[in-house]
Amino acid sequence: MADEKKLTSQSEDYSAWYNEVVLRAELADYAPVRGCMVVRPYGTTLWENVQQALDRRFKETGHVNALFPLLIPMSFLQREADHVEGFSPELAVVTHGGGKELEEPLVVRPTSETVIGYMYSKWIRSYRDLPLLINQWGNVVRWEMRTRLFLRTAEFYWQEGHTAHATYEEAQEETLRMLGVYADFAINDAAIPVIEGRKSESERFAGAVASYSIEAMMGNKWALQAGTSHMLGQNFAKAFDIQYLDENNELQYCWTTSWGLSTRMVGAIIMAHGDDQGLRLPPKLAPYQLVVVPIWRNEDQKRAVLEVTARIAAHLRSSYRIKVDDREEVTPGFKFNEWELRGVPLRLEIGPRDVENESVVMARRDIPGRAGKSVAPMAGLSAAVGDMLDTIQADMLDSATVFRDANIREPEDYEALKDTVDHGWARAYWCGNPECETRIKEDTRATNRNIPLDQEGAGPGLCIVCGEPAEEWSYWARAY
Amino acid sequence: MADEKKLTSQSEDYSAWYNEVVLRAELADYAPVRGCMVVRPYGTTLWENVQQALDRRFKETGHVNALFPLLIPMSFLQREADHVEGFSPELAVVTHGGGKELEEPLVVRPTSETVIGYMYSKWIRSYRDLPLLINQWGNVVRWEMRTRLFLRTAEFYWQEGHTAHATYEEAQEETLRMLGVYADFAINDAAIPVIEGRKSESERFAGAVASYSIEAMMGNKWALQAGTSHMLGQNFAKAFDIQYLDENNELQYCWTTSWGLSTRMVGAIIMAHGDDQGLRLPPKLAPYQLVVVPIWRNEDQKRAVLEVTARIAAHLRSSYRIKVDDREEVTPGFKFNEWELRGVPLRLEIGPRDVENESVVMARRDIPGRAGKSVAPMAGLSAAVGDMLDTIQADMLDSATVFRDANIREPEDYEALKDTVDHGWARAYWCGNPECETRIKEDTRATNRNIPLDQEGAGPGLCIVCGEPAEEWSYWARAY
Repeated sequence: MADEKKLTSQSEDYSAWYNEVVLRAELADYAPVRGCMVVRPYGTTLWENVQQALDRRFKETGHVNALFPLLIPMSFLQREADHVEGFSPELAVVTHGGGKELEEPLVVRPTSETVIGYMYSKWIRSYRDLPLLINQWGNVVRWEMRTRLFLRTAEFYWQEGHTAHATYEEAQEETLRMLGVYADFAINDAAIPVIEGRKSESERFAGAVASYSIEAMMGNKWALQAGTSHMLGQNFAKAFDIQYLDENNELQYCWTTSWGLSTRMVGAIIMAHGDDQGLRLPPKLAPYQLVVVPIWRNEDQKRAVLEVTARIAAHLRSSYRIKVDDREEVTPGFKFNEWELRGVPLRLEIGPRDVENESVVMARRDIPGRAGKSVAPMAGLSAAVGDMLDTIQADMLDSATVFRDANIREPEDYEALKDTVDHGWARAYWCGNPECETRIKEDTRATNRNIPLDQEGAGPGLCIVCGEPAEEWSYWARAY
Repeated sequence: MADEKKLTSQSEDYSAWYNEVVLRAELADYAPVRGCMVVRPYGTTLWENVQQALDRRFKETGHVNALFPLLIPMSFLQREADHVEGFSPELAVVTHGGGKELEEPLVVRPTSETVIGYMYSKWIRSYRDLPLLINQWGNVVRWEMRTRLFLRTAEFYWQEGHTAHATYEEAQEETLRMLGVYADFAINDAAIPVIEGRKSESERFAGAVASYSIEAMMGNKWALQAGTSHMLGQNFAKAFDIQYLDENNELQYCWTTSWGLSTRMVGAIIMAHGDDQGLRLPPKLAPYQLVVVPIWRNEDQKRAVLEVTARIAAHLRSSYRIKVDDREEVTPGFKFNEWELRGVPLRLEIGPRDVENESVVMARRDIPGRAGKSVAPMAGLSAAVGDMLDTIQADMLDSATVFRDANIREPEDYEALKDTVDHGWARAYWCGNPECETRIKEDTRATNRNIPLDQEGAGPGLCIVCGEPAEEWSYWARAY
């Protein structure tokens, strides 16, 4: 339960603010295993809402779910050279089973391209079996050195889509389609205005031909990669013999993709919207969309207020995720603070005067203080609540977009770029040379976030580092 | 895809029939890791339907979901003596992480009482925090020697509920409530008439004070334990220091429970209902509740039939999980066989004559041949389909109940019991002495399935083995 101690403010120590919010809002806790977390019920419900919003979109785009094994033979990873090189340092390895040493060690999956590739090679025979569009919800383990709740944990939860196609074009289309699904979810459900783009070569997924990401701006103006989609070319098809007979009865290698979004998204939601009072959750994903706080001073008032509260709650419950906080051991003010900390988008207050006036006080979480308060008549309350939640959802996206756009600058030259990435994101031309990319990273600790798909307005320009001709804009920022 | 080869019949080789059905219906496949399975999309959707039906019931009884870590320090298991003894032989052990040997080995969770107990000891402070009612959906690993798809796999999927209470009575009530939830789900959604009862001491969960199960009869008259609920007493509370301050400000140990139901339930559904044609899935859980097969001989017919099929399918899709099989490369007869193999409860056939008569042919999966066929007018089809699915659901439960009851006998004496358990289940008095239990097992390979909660009609009797006084009936059967 939240105590009355104030949160560390964001400006004082953003990192401390983040950890305190996660723990005190009861989203997650530290597990007794190095780098692992426990996702508490409030955080789990938030994640389940993310899952539902994504799963619906996956089904609408023709995907089905399946479950592949947690443990993968070590030799599978070694079949794709880049893949094993990328993941080797992060593996958790099972060496003993049933009391005996295993003949071949098994890794706890860090991602499942290899074992899914193996199964696809068994299942795919002809062009009629394509495209194969499968998604998996599950847990993976990567032995990370520095961990943060939700942002980077040794075990995390995610979905990983794995698809196989007959042609390059179809696989490329799928890669971008799923990037678009992530962006649509982030923007419309999480109220986070992400930017879709291609990762630079150095930031590519181990084994991919091209990687794409959605990038979000956090409250401290750092970037967070919130979802990735990979065009794997024929790399895994060749490593795992994923072949099909085409319409001319000739054997061809498939083209495959993979794409993933994880519990990291919860971290993105916390940091894109949170303020010094705590979380601010978008109505579409919030575990509780509204909390009702009845207020009374004496027994007579209590009876009348609780009766009305129960009636209103029963009515609203059929349409909204609602919490009634009628605890007697804490004050209304304590409850206000607690549910603000926990980010509930809308609060209804019902006191004796409200009962008399047949109205309720509505307080918006996204607009603090008096400005966010209004009075709504009890008649037609459900529609008013719905309208208000829609408004909050839209305003949260607007306000995050304004914040993002105000903190992206286009520096004139390299010196200006150094300054820009100290205070936000830079959009700048880059020639594509990894040396220029490395120089920015070494000089500023900012990295190439992505090369946006939207290059509208970008003509040929000059690389901000070396001055050579450059075709495309990139975003540069400090990142989680 | 199913080929046209007939399934091995149940009477010929029940075990071969089971494996063939699982593979050919594309419920699951063997993973390239010893004893593990891949749950294919059709099986995953069936499991997701099981999950939804259970999760709804868990929420209705006040439970919330959370996510606890996959990896557990070995020392945690050792804190509860019976628990570590029970699970030690089945552990998969992670000894290396991030390229280094770990200081303490981690086990891949075989079940989560220990790590959840550790967290509960941090979260529970006072009686106000009780009861704590948490469920987890996830995967666990038990290094089983002999595995079978769904029935016993090294990795399996399940839910595990873990609750903490202030008193013995509340914990005992919870244990039986969740057993009742499992029974309600099995009977009303899976159409399997399970029997609720207490496990004998020898079959108890490692660390429990009492274990309860639901037991189902399979098509070969063997029993299958389809869900268990455990009263853990204060064993884990003492091992993990789960204490609370009561209303008198005195420190007390909690009383805890745990309860689980796994992908084994999919095996139960296959074997409780399947026949020589393949699966028969209950409408409430079937991935597709109905399949529509359009039938034509020439292009004119094709156009008309597909047009009507599309219209009907669009209409039915809003209410039912529906598959339209309009493939051109296979015959209608092939499709009938395939969807019968895959257990779709209802088939609609739409041919040129049906289009003319504005009717469709409905064929029930649960009643083979002509007897299961009827003609329904297109007008009001959605309601007719709904009624038919309800009828199928009810008839499947009836028929499984008749089958079960016809195969439970009450043997007169020990010789008769030996014969009975060769052909079905025996219900017989047992004195409770483990020696009598062991003797039955050694003589017949039948085990005590459970001591049913429903002892109506059971007066004091005599133990079927030793003739000593006995208070309760038990069920005895060969079991998976």
